[in-house]
Amino acid sequence: MIGPVSPFAPETSPVMPEIPGVRLATVEAGIKYQGRRDLLLAVFEPGTVAAGVLTQSKTRSAAVDWCAEQLKHGRARALVVNSGNANAFTGKRGAEAVRITAEAAAQAVGCQPEEVYIASTGVIGEPLETGKFAHLLENLAKGASSTAWLEAAEAIMTTDTYPKLAARSAHALPVAGIAKGSGMIAPDMATMLGFHFTDAKIDRSLLQQAVLSNAQDTYNRITVDSDTSTSDTVIVFATGNASNRGIAPLKSAETPEFADFATTLGDNMRDLAQQIVKDGEGLTKFVTVAVYGAETDHAARRIAFAIANSPLVKTAIAGEDPNWGRVIMAIGKSGEAVDRDRVAIHFGEHLVAQQGERDPHYDEAAAATYMKAPQIEISVDVGVGTGQDHVWTCDLTHRYISINADYRS
Amino acid sequence: MIGPVSPFAPETSPVMPEIPGVRLATVEAGIKYQGRRDLLLAVFEPGTVAAGVLTQSKTRSAAVDWCAEQLKHGRARALVVNSGNANAFTGKRGAEAVRITAEAAAQAVGCQPEEVYIASTGVIGEPLETGKFAHLLENLAKGASSTAWLEAAEAIMTTDTYPKLAARSAHALPVAGIAKGSGMIAPDMATMLGFHFTDAKIDRSLLQQAVLSNAQDTYNRITVDSDTSTSDTVIVFATGNASNRGIAPLKSAETPEFADFATTLGDNMRDLAQQIVKDGEGLTKFVTVAVYGAETDHAARRIAFAIANSPLVKTAIAGEDPNWGRVIMAIGKSGEAVDRDRVAIHFGEHLVAQQGERDPHYDEAAAATYMKAPQIEISVDVGVGTGQDHVWTCDLTHRYISINADYRS
Repeated sequence: MIGPVSPFAPETSPVMPEIPGVRLATVEAGIKYQGRRDLLLAVFEPGTVAAGVLTQSKTRSAAVDWCAEQLKHGRARALVVNSGNANAFTGKRGAEAVRITAEAAAQAVGCQPEEVYIASTGVIGEPLETGKFAHLLENLAKGASSTAWLEAAEAIMTTDTYPKLAARSAHALPVAGIAKGSGMIAPDMATMLGFHFTDAKIDRSLLQQAVLSNAQDTYNRITVDSDTSTSDTVIVFATGNASNRGIAPLKSAETPEFADFATTLGDNMRDLAQQIVKDGEGLTKFVTVAVYGAETDHAARRIAFAIANSPLVKTAIAGEDPNWGRVIMAIGKSGEAVDRDRVAIHFGEHLVAQQGERDPHYDEAAAATYMKAPQIEISVDVGVGTGQDHVWTCDLTHRYISINADYRS
Repeated sequence: MIGPVSPFAPETSPVMPEIPGVRLATVEAGIKYQGRRDLLLAVFEPGTVAAGVLTQSKTRSAAVDWCAEQLKHGRARALVVNSGNANAFTGKRGAEAVRITAEAAAQAVGCQPEEVYIASTGVIGEPLETGKFAHLLENLAKGASSTAWLEAAEAIMTTDTYPKLAARSAHALPVAGIAKGSGMIAPDMATMLGFHFTDAKIDRSLLQQAVLSNAQDTYNRITVDSDTSTSDTVIVFATGNASNRGIAPLKSAETPEFADFATTLGDNMRDLAQQIVKDGEGLTKFVTVAVYGAETDHAARRIAFAIANSPLVKTAIAGEDPNWGRVIMAIGKSGEAVDRDRVAIHFGEHLVAQQGERDPHYDEAAAATYMKAPQIEISVDVGVGTGQDHVWTCDLTHRYISINADYRS
């Protein structure tokens, strides 16, 4: 089903840089969708390294299995992504489809199958027919260009209502990324993919370090509906071509150059992570939940997710209701240490509760007005320590139900 | 808001026995609701013992704090329950309201305040004004009768669409219960209360043993929306009057009489627990999720709850869609050990997936027909061990959103 576009869809696409060593191509393969791009091939020059993080799901897809294996060495020459079929829970045939795809891409690009990274997003449990697209990879490789970013972001969409792109640079090192997430045409599950590209010359393990530390603060802080995908994949590709431009390799985690690069990569990841939430199924509000005063940062994050994933909190936000009693409830159910009689809650600048009860100066009308804004911040002090963290989420609306219940896959 | 009655509302109320030593009275106190009963007083004869289980929430209500204290000794002469206000997150004033209520009930009944049990359900964070109802307790005590079960069950409702009662007996020992749960007129959170009554002569610690073991298999196996209340309370009152009828006291956990009593109490608790789910906010389907082949029973239960709490699984059921891919997803996100390539899934009698992929004989049309039934069973074998468990839940519908987002408190 196609519905209204997210209220947070950007009015214009960002200007994307060329990343030396990266070329992109897309095509309408008709894997499931008709009349739209559904296959992406990214080609990388020799010397490219990859680092990434994958879903923690115990029922992860065949493509994720494959990427986990290849990320051990991190050599990368190609990325193949299809939308419409997740190739998850497809047994031996699923693993076979991945192998066939890797071999076809390797032949098209001129590399080893093990240097091909693969991601699939869409319906679960349907066999992925490689016959529909493997033969297209050769032409894609020939026609790949360094500027097809928008098409690449479009090709990996499922029920996303807008393509997700972001670019930044650290000194002379460009970082570009594309992502998809939060929608389903054949109702299935929110699947999150993020790919970032740079021409930094960087060791694989150092790149992995930058990815891991940033994933915690970006993609791992978002939730639309608490349902973890079988296919979540974030991979960063670094071509190393920056050396040709006279830019020094990133050799040590201790250098300011690496620190700047890692920060820029993190900003790029956070940008796309937030874009995914801002395209959350059926959303009308983007919500930041910040927790302070917890026993540890980890405890703060668990409390923040308990609030962000509570159906009652999310429906209250959809109803523009400053229903802080539900926030109290969610804090309580997190299981983490809180001092009930020292809890304080703000909605934006509005102090609604403190010292274990409603603030005497609380102004319900003012808080209700605040709740009409498209972006809401809920901050909570649980009064036991110095741990803090925050997560991003969206509201839970009738449209979420419509997208996931009213239409059959 | 008042909406349609649950499709699972019973056509007639069950016949409830008198429980020697228990009298009940209700009144319209106008605590929040108008034109309906909202205050229950249950009076117990001297010698009554109480055992119970309370919410694990870290932000539990003042009434729950009070009950936790009194359950340490277990002497009981009265129970006071109000609806419309949960007296949760109300600080010192909340604790004061509980004390005033206990003292008023003690004076009305002729006992110590510590022999009064209290539960409150309704909106969170609003001060509970005891001035509205404390003075009514004396007349309630005078007029209490042994037959006012239906009125008692009605008085503790919030947005429940039907009163919840159940009765059973073990040999000559009657067990009667009332419960409420899953609705909100002032949109707030699903609050679950269950009270059971018997005239068994039984030691408090033995009664507590029967409650604890049964709570695990009954109230602790239900979920409507994964949001844990600040006020969940289950208490069993045993008056001991059975001795006057020549029925032997229950003295040891090793006797068949105790085993029968505990089983009957468990059946009574399960009956009301299922009635709560069957009145889940906005539901159209009652769903049993059974998990087999897990590492442990505990792991099976966590997997079952991951499925039962998944918004995507719940919306698929609302849409009568046999979307087993979402069940795969939920199994994967549970974090428990599963063998992806040995997972088997049944919807009712329909084998949909096995050996890590869709069953070759799977008949989507037959499964879709099965999903139209009002009661659905999803069973899953995760293929790693012998642990098993099951939970009960309901679907997630547009009406859940309407109840919790469209109407302001």
